[in-house]
Amino acid sequence: MRLDHNGLEVLDRDECLRLLGGAVIGRVGVSSGALPRVLPVNFRLDGDRILIRTGRGTKLDAATANAVVAFEVDDIDPVDQTGWSVVVTGVAREVTDPAELAAVRAAPLARWAPQGHDDRVMAISTELVDGRRILRDRAEAVTP
Amino acid sequence: MRLDHNGLEVLDRDECLRLLGGAVIGRVGVSSGALPRVLPVNFRLDGDRILIRTGRGTKLDAATANAVVAFEVDDIDPVDQTGWSVVVTGVAREVTDPAELAAVRAAPLARWAPQGHDDRVMAISTELVDGRRILRDRAEAVTP
Repeated sequence: MRLDHNGLEVLDRDECLRLLGGAVIGRVGVSSGALPRVLPVNFRLDGDRILIRTGRGTKLDAATANAVVAFEVDDIDPVDQTGWSVVVTGVAREVTDPAELAAVRAAPLARWAPQGHDDRVMAISTELVDGRRILRDRAEAVTP
Repeated sequence: MRLDHNGLEVLDRDECLRLLGGAVIGRVGVSSGALPRVLPVNFRLDGDRILIRTGRGTKLDAATANAVVAFEVDDIDPVDQTGWSVVVTGVAREVTDPAELAAVRAAPLARWAPQGHDDRVMAISTELVDGRRILRDRAEAVTP
């Protein structure tokens, strides 16, 4: 087991993808109008890429088109202060190829916002994944 | 109740701050080396500002010093697809005034990473808050 200089366990790529595969809600971090934004999204891990739905014309849509995005998923117990976080950094591109879209639509993919039309599917590559886990016996909760 | 064009309930500032006040884990979105990053953090709402701890020399430390950051907190039920998300956009600055630091340290504030020393306390202003709630009867989970 490898620890970083903050005492967090460094997760390897396989473990990161395993954790991503078991989650359905993540957060996309983008730069939008020169300001950082973080937006919650539903997603699905499809092979080695992240799939999310956006509505055309939304902030998420505008911010993710062919942009480098950060995609974060975590599962942290606020009481125990244990858990993990995985961050993907990759280019988001729209899935437009009809055959590829058909394959993507064969499995369910929820959308965060209940309304909206003219949906697009964005794919985020996972070449860069970075994962950390807080180990239970190393967790602490102290005053700053 | 006000809905946005995606059918999400728009939360007012008071409700956003109430939700922030009941949470302990959020995500900071920053630009770091021209790339967007999203990092999980423990935090505490202190009046109308967000307090987080960072270790000196960490990525979070480097990325948040006097930078505009996005700070996101959510609570989403992955099964029901209901929940809320609040995003704060503000300038992060280090708390350095001794009296102010003493006041801040009077209440507990956990740190995401278990190890580290030479902690800093960063404060994020909450002038800009943006909150949304997914209403249960409007939620859906459909194929893209």
